Amino acid sequence: MAPVFNVAVFLYSGADILDFCGPIEIYSTSPPSGAAVPFTVTTFGFEERIKDATNTLTLVPEATFQDVSSNLDNYDILLFPGSWPDVLSPLLESENGKALLDMIRNFARLKPREETGHRIVQSVCTGALILAASGILAGKTVTTHHLGYDILKEFADKAAGGESNIKVVRKRWVDAGFTDAGVRIINAGGVTSGIDTSLFISEVLIGKEWADHVADVVEFERRKQDDGWGA
Amino acid sequence: MAPVFNVAVFLYSGADILDFCGPIEIYSTSPPSGAAVPFTVTTFGFEERIKDATNTLTLVPEATFQDVSSNLDNYDILLFPGSWPDVLSPLLESENGKALLDMIRNFARLKPREETGHRIVQSVCTGALILAASGILAGKTVTTHHLGYDILKEFADKAAGGESNIKVVRKRWVDAGFTDAGVRIINAGGVTSGIDTSLFISEVLIGKEWADHVADVVEFERRKQDDGWGA
Repeated sequence: MAPVFNVAVFLYSGADILDFCGPIEIYSTSPPSGAAVPFTVTTFGFEERIKDATNTLTLVPEATFQDVSSNLDNYDILLFPGSWPDVLSPLLESENGKALLDMIRNFARLKPREETGHRIVQSVCTGALILAASGILAGKTVTTHHLGYDILKEFADKAAGGESNIKVVRKRWVDAGFTDAGVRIINAGGVTSGIDTSLFISEVLIGKEWADHVADVVEFERRKQDDGWGA
Repeated sequence: MAPVFNVAVFLYSGADILDFCGPIEIYSTSPPSGAAVPFTVTTFGFEERIKDATNTLTLVPEATFQDVSSNLDNYDILLFPGSWPDVLSPLLESENGKALLDMIRNFARLKPREETGHRIVQSVCTGALILAASGILAGKTVTTHHLGYDILKEFADKAAGGESNIKVVRKRWVDAGFTDAGVRIINAGGVTSGIDTSLFISEVLIGKEWADHVADVVEFERRKQDDGWGA
């Protein structure tokens, strides 16, 4: 039986809706045959209800932070949407934020999941700032929204207590390589780049034919990794 | 003072998330100056909580159907995301569905809004089936998701009680023209085409510079109207 990949998506008040709805759409697309969807998606958060960045949508996460953090081994992909730095900074400095950063570090120390052979941390847009604050981007080549390159380095340096040696590049997405334990880190550029990144991850995990099927269903021309915004 | 365009987005259980989150993102983007966002977005529905088509997100619409239908004159854009025909058919045949189709017909009979000079019905993906069922697409050239062309005609013919004389074309979006009263009908193709359509509408209402700014913020290459999926 084909493996099923479990995705956990962190929702928080102020998160950009397209940052998380693009990937959720991609990971929830059905096969043409009516066979099972190869992913499960679980949304989780600290809050019972969250308001997105536009303050238009009210969402109810399915799982609590505790549900996911106490069961980390069960997930193949942890996904972090972005927001404004003035939303992220107070969040990450709060007690909840510290627990979140601990969770990311714990996940980064796991081996690939036994059932699938994979383990991925995915950021979309300024979701990369959350990863940077956890310290796991130190020494990596990474990307984020095209207006966030400098602040991403600031977040990474702050977490490193000095020079983080991250290199921020202008790409649609970056496959930043693996943690020591073997967890792959993948950053999308801004907003709609989360769609490209999720298609890339779908291709890595399942294959090009599958990723092309999903792109067809959502009528999205897959863009190239090196085609960074404004480059 | 620049006019503010009021958008009402119909949410229902089974709606495709990217169909409505793409447009909401576009209509909620801020100007670079920190000036006011030129749109307001209100989500509404019959249900207190809805589950999207992926069954992953639980959303709480901000307004009831009654709130919006009793105050139609206040809206510049009514937006309808799509779903599977087997979700839409029972919805549209229910008492709620009949009220919804009445609301669309009532909106289509309004004059352009006094404050803005505009009034638009926008469908994304198979949201066009909802418009077809209301009868307002009869005689128009329209589009929908590339797998929905035949069923769109079926919905329109059923509403017309015979030949609806709609012409379904393969385009990224269609500007289907105006109702007798002057309400403009605009259909997007599948899923991500809702992003293109909302950028097109932004350009129509505010201008190319604004639409290009929004596309830049979300790192989305604007695609061409005639570039229909699979064409």
